[in-house]
Amino acid sequence: MVKPNIGFIGLGRMGAPMAKNLLDADYPLIAYDIVPSKVESLVSAGAKAGSSCRHVASESQIVITIVPDSPDVEVAVLGPDGVLEGATSGDIVIEMSTIAPGVGRRVAQALSQKGAPMLDAPVSGGPQGAEAGALSIMVGGPEEAFKQCLPILQVMGERIEHFGPNGSGYMVKLCNQVGCVVTIQAVCEVLSLAAKAGLDVRKVWQTVGSGLAASRIMELHGPKMLERDYAPGFTLALQEKDLRLVAAAADELEMPLPATSAVHQLIRSLSAKGKGELGTQALVLAMEELANCQVKG
Amino acid sequence: MVKPNIGFIGLGRMGAPMAKNLLDADYPLIAYDIVPSKVESLVSAGAKAGSSCRHVASESQIVITIVPDSPDVEVAVLGPDGVLEGATSGDIVIEMSTIAPGVGRRVAQALSQKGAPMLDAPVSGGPQGAEAGALSIMVGGPEEAFKQCLPILQVMGERIEHFGPNGSGYMVKLCNQVGCVVTIQAVCEVLSLAAKAGLDVRKVWQTVGSGLAASRIMELHGPKMLERDYAPGFTLALQEKDLRLVAAAADELEMPLPATSAVHQLIRSLSAKGKGELGTQALVLAMEELANCQVKG
Repeated sequence: MVKPNIGFIGLGRMGAPMAKNLLDADYPLIAYDIVPSKVESLVSAGAKAGSSCRHVASESQIVITIVPDSPDVEVAVLGPDGVLEGATSGDIVIEMSTIAPGVGRRVAQALSQKGAPMLDAPVSGGPQGAEAGALSIMVGGPEEAFKQCLPILQVMGERIEHFGPNGSGYMVKLCNQVGCVVTIQAVCEVLSLAAKAGLDVRKVWQTVGSGLAASRIMELHGPKMLERDYAPGFTLALQEKDLRLVAAAADELEMPLPATSAVHQLIRSLSAKGKGELGTQALVLAMEELANCQVKG
Repeated sequence: MVKPNIGFIGLGRMGAPMAKNLLDADYPLIAYDIVPSKVESLVSAGAKAGSSCRHVASESQIVITIVPDSPDVEVAVLGPDGVLEGATSGDIVIEMSTIAPGVGRRVAQALSQKGAPMLDAPVSGGPQGAEAGALSIMVGGPEEAFKQCLPILQVMGERIEHFGPNGSGYMVKLCNQVGCVVTIQAVCEVLSLAAKAGLDVRKVWQTVGSGLAASRIMELHGPKMLERDYAPGFTLALQEKDLRLVAAAADELEMPLPATSAVHQLIRSLSAKGKGELGTQALVLAMEELANCQVKG
């Protein structure tokens, strides 16, 4: 089977390693990013350089986009010189950003009117997962397009699930973010209460973390909080963006999310203090500030 | 070594199996509960019947208490015909209830003035853990008394940790409850958002539960929420009691706990509707009510 030409738009911390994995799997690839040096770096790995989103789309059957936020997707696909102008009937767009489900559905509709179905296929697993081709990919959109694109998705991810029509992939990703932030807050409240009470916080972490309150976040973020290591995997700024998307989606659904909202406000308070580029484990700093205590151990 | 006589006060869903394990380990045991039939049941398993807390204390070197709440401990130990009246210098009280750290410290002080040190040693692991002798036991109190009692604690528990002076065992238990309830809420918000968005909730549970938001509660309570199985392990009423203790302790410490407080209010709303005897996984009913949706799958 001849491999389709893939256009790849968005060569950031996630996109670049994902695109490289596609090159390594021998997909012909044309790449574009608004930052020219990122394109050059991928060209030296074997990609063709695209000069615009339209150009990329006009030279490929499958167009992958992965950019920071909803407006970026709107610009890349619907804007002047965008994917929509370059796409032809039968092309498929795999939109892998984490954006508002409503925006995603609107973009999908515009594309489908040109005969180009879109899959929403946001990912989780971070840059490490992207490099290892081990992302979790949550897909929404036409079943037929999903089946066609599955081999491509399997190059980038390990756990790939189709959830329903366009928008459902984005919604599942938002559900995932809700679960993550509230669980991070659970760990923060445990450790900060322990610190405030003058307990041996590391010992509390061990005991609580091996009981019913055990979680992957307790295991991965707990030690970083204890060591005051706030280097990002995933930044608070990106988390805050995702929580804005959650809030917008919840608003549309008339869905109250009391704990998620509380965490959103705490992250916002950290952003206000210029801490957005720290990792999400730095949420514990908001609890330290609120409670006037220090978590370490 | 001669095994000390153990007095056991409080033969509820936790106390009864814990006392039975001590009998099985050949500890001479005298048992008391305000409900006579519970005493009889333990007598038929080989215990002596105590006629009051004082009586039990006067006939044993080690007195174990495990009762529902702070006032129950005050009555059992400090009240008329209580443990304090029957205890003599050198006795040790192992207080295994989950109560307010401040109350526990006061009770410990009264006992120590009579030469009887107290350990606070609340447990987690539920009736199943109690039956299996596999509880997690979080201990505060004098190191020396802890060492003396360790063989007894090891009959009832598997993970036994000493955290510091009196009150610290209770505090760690409260930290544990904080971690549990906020993590339960994380799962509730994920599943109710998924339901409200019309997604396949079981599929979302599988995907989100195997990513960064994975937790023991996601694993254990998630399926029960999906199956609408609210049979208790641990009841909402007891959880609410524990959250009152958390709130009181946090108040003393001037410790804000935004997510824990939010969950406390939600549990209170379920109690107000007569749902206190359901298991803690029924917290999802509060989200269903708030969001006008139904979690199932």
